[in-house]
Amino acid sequence: MFTGPAGRSVRVGLDVGGTKTDAVALAPDGALLGRLRRPTGFGPDAVVQGILEAVSALADEGGFAIGDIESVGVGIPGMIENGTGRVLHAVNLGVDSLDIAARAQSAIGARFAVENDVKAAALGAASLRHDGASMAYLNLGTGVAAGIVVGGRIWRGAHGTAGEVGHVSVDPHGRICGCGQRGCVETLCGGGALAKAWGRPGALPVRDIFDAAETGDPQALALRRDLARGAAAAVRLLVLSVDVERVMIGGGLTALGVRLYTDLLAAIREDAATSPFMRSLRLDERIELLPAGSPVAAIGAALLGDHAAADHPTPEKETAAHG
Amino acid sequence: MFTGPAGRSVRVGLDVGGTKTDAVALAPDGALLGRLRRPTGFGPDAVVQGILEAVSALADEGGFAIGDIESVGVGIPGMIENGTGRVLHAVNLGVDSLDIAARAQSAIGARFAVENDVKAAALGAASLRHDGASMAYLNLGTGVAAGIVVGGRIWRGAHGTAGEVGHVSVDPHGRICGCGQRGCVETLCGGGALAKAWGRPGALPVRDIFDAAETGDPQALALRRDLARGAAAAVRLLVLSVDVERVMIGGGLTALGVRLYTDLLAAIREDAATSPFMRSLRLDERIELLPAGSPVAAIGAALLGDHAAADHPTPEKETAAHG
Repeated sequence: MFTGPAGRSVRVGLDVGGTKTDAVALAPDGALLGRLRRPTGFGPDAVVQGILEAVSALADEGGFAIGDIESVGVGIPGMIENGTGRVLHAVNLGVDSLDIAARAQSAIGARFAVENDVKAAALGAASLRHDGASMAYLNLGTGVAAGIVVGGRIWRGAHGTAGEVGHVSVDPHGRICGCGQRGCVETLCGGGALAKAWGRPGALPVRDIFDAAETGDPQALALRRDLARGAAAAVRLLVLSVDVERVMIGGGLTALGVRLYTDLLAAIREDAATSPFMRSLRLDERIELLPAGSPVAAIGAALLGDHAAADHPTPEKETAAHG
Repeated sequence: MFTGPAGRSVRVGLDVGGTKTDAVALAPDGALLGRLRRPTGFGPDAVVQGILEAVSALADEGGFAIGDIESVGVGIPGMIENGTGRVLHAVNLGVDSLDIAARAQSAIGARFAVENDVKAAALGAASLRHDGASMAYLNLGTGVAAGIVVGGRIWRGAHGTAGEVGHVSVDPHGRICGCGQRGCVETLCGGGALAKAWGRPGALPVRDIFDAAETGDPQALALRRDLARGAAAAVRLLVLSVDVERVMIGGGLTALGVRLYTDLLAAIREDAATSPFMRSLRLDERIELLPAGSPVAAIGAALLGDHAAADHPTPEKETAAHG
């Protein structure tokens, strides 16, 4: 049972995914007070209702009152409008435009913060280390995107597209991407693109690909190799553009575990073998695979209240800080 | 004749290139007091001697005394060691390791700052606009690299490789790059790689390629197309990773002028035609071609003293500024 100080001190984080919602509650010292997983509803009303029910269930489980909640952070797979926090185009949730804070804040009486799920996960992953190093969180799920954390804050960029490395084309003869381009990183290492290229039925197509590759299936071997070279390309991209110290890899494909990690290391080292320059970057020492099912997006969402997401720092602020 | 206030107030900037050195002197208000160009010497002693002579000649031309110089900034094509400012591996200058400040500072009595030439040029290009927007300077010269300026400061990254987009591979079947990888952006749009692929004699191979393309030469047409798609790939990379507001293009290949700009715009629009996502980024409105011969590297070098180059902001500093 949590017996916090008088007043609001619990930070709640929700990762509202296409099928399930992960929820965590953090004590002021960062300790996990509770964690649960629930199905996500479809459409704006069901999404808001699901958030309220998840917070309520989490309070029951964690032994705290709704009145103890200081902030609720929500990570959600959609665009977040700069300034307003409004969710746009969360197609997997049936949401075209939704102001979660306006709908849910009054029922809970705590501050709300809303962020794109991959960016929230980046903040959560960065919080697992305590060295303040710059990092990118590379999400290998149905799609592929990265979140970048520098100086403990989410790096959004000028228009919120920082880290969208899934849609960099790395092969002019590659497969057509859902975005309309050809040979995007996501066509190589996105779970959705791999399942489509595989084209055989099965609940876990990427796992099926790895299993079939181990029996020597040529199509599976080619797709398994695509996954590794796509992920390696994403890592290289992040280091050769932003130059983050570390790339932490999460998302559904981490269920492949050591098989994914081994392939990725091999792809990175194969590239470095022919290039002293790439070798000097020591990418193999700068990647880390998160354990499957890590609730980094929910944890990051819980931290959103502390770490306001922001675009690039303004010159004035920079001068004040560093001049 | 410059009649500044008593004391040191002139900022000198030098762009020490492989064959020539550009030098500028700036008054406190940023006005250009003088500008000159001299041949660069080869080897550490000749490089230092050339810097001292350029500063002296610039003082004569600008009508100020050596004692009026507040700072000397040097942009140089090499790696700059973090912290020390030592130049490493400036192979085109015959310099393996050189501490320019230690060798030249006493003779001039002003502060010295040394930076990689592309990073210095990024600072200079950013200073041409006064909106404080984040930007990347994409240098299309013999090689290809970008410098990134955010919040008025050079973005170095964790190990100084931020902006090294020339060595991102975008074609697994492309030409071998000088770095040892295959299909790097630089193999498509670097002047050195294009000249090598062209393989015909001539003082200005890339201009020859464009001239021959206009007569329908198939090899020239293919290489001209490579240049455009390589430069377009670099622009996309910078926006999809760092998400800079603007990409300003400089370097020797800008001598191609409107022909380069037209091709690049066409390549960017061709890509956007198939992709609503790419269209939403409005890359065609975010690029700018600098006039050929713009002394942005020398101007940026002159500004180095004001804008200390730095790696990523630290969490402490960020918290102080934005928390």
